[in-house]
Amino acid sequence: MAAPRSTALEGSLKTMIEVFHFYATKQGDPHSLNKGEFHALVSTELANVLADQSDRDKVNTLLSSLDADKNGEVDFEEYMSMLSSLAIKCNQLLTGAPAHRQ
Amino acid sequence: MAAPRSTALEGSLKTMIEVFHFYATKQGDPHSLNKGEFHALVSTELANVLADQSDRDKVNTLLSSLDADKNGEVDFEEYMSMLSSLAIKCNQLLTGAPAHRQ
Repeated sequence: MAAPRSTALEGSLKTMIEVFHFYATKQGDPHSLNKGEFHALVSTELANVLADQSDRDKVNTLLSSLDADKNGEVDFEEYMSMLSSLAIKCNQLLTGAPAHRQ
Repeated sequence: MAAPRSTALEGSLKTMIEVFHFYATKQGDPHSLNKGEFHALVSTELANVLADQSDRDKVNTLLSSLDADKNGEVDFEEYMSMLSSLAIKCNQLLTGAPAHRQ
């Protein structure tokens, strides 16, 4: 019996996991991104979303703000919190959605 | 000049936004999912990830736990926190990644 086809949303989750691991396994801890791996991932895989230079500076601030546990590495949960913030910003830009109602 | 091609990771963010809006705009507030829209999204778009019945019960618990501001609706940020938790669980299952180091 063939495995059920995954949906577009499930495919998106899989892509997020695969992209993280493609970069995280290049050096050192295979379950986290060091500074170089993080820069490579963001500048390649988010090239359009973070297109201009001021965004590149943001990447550095992003890295330090993301590194919640201050170990100089970005683990999968910190990576997902970055992607969530990006999706929330894009959603507000694309659909005019209100910021989260506190 | 043609628009730059988006990367797979950018495409995943776009899919997450589009799927949310496909369901959120069916009834009522176009920027949030009511209970029916949330159930439809989860049972259709996450059919494989949440495959068995016990997972369906989880959807109800998920809905109440997600609805952080208790307005009976799931907004985009609450939806993204669900997808992040799912991605983190899948990542642990698929790659043996350790749970977040506190």
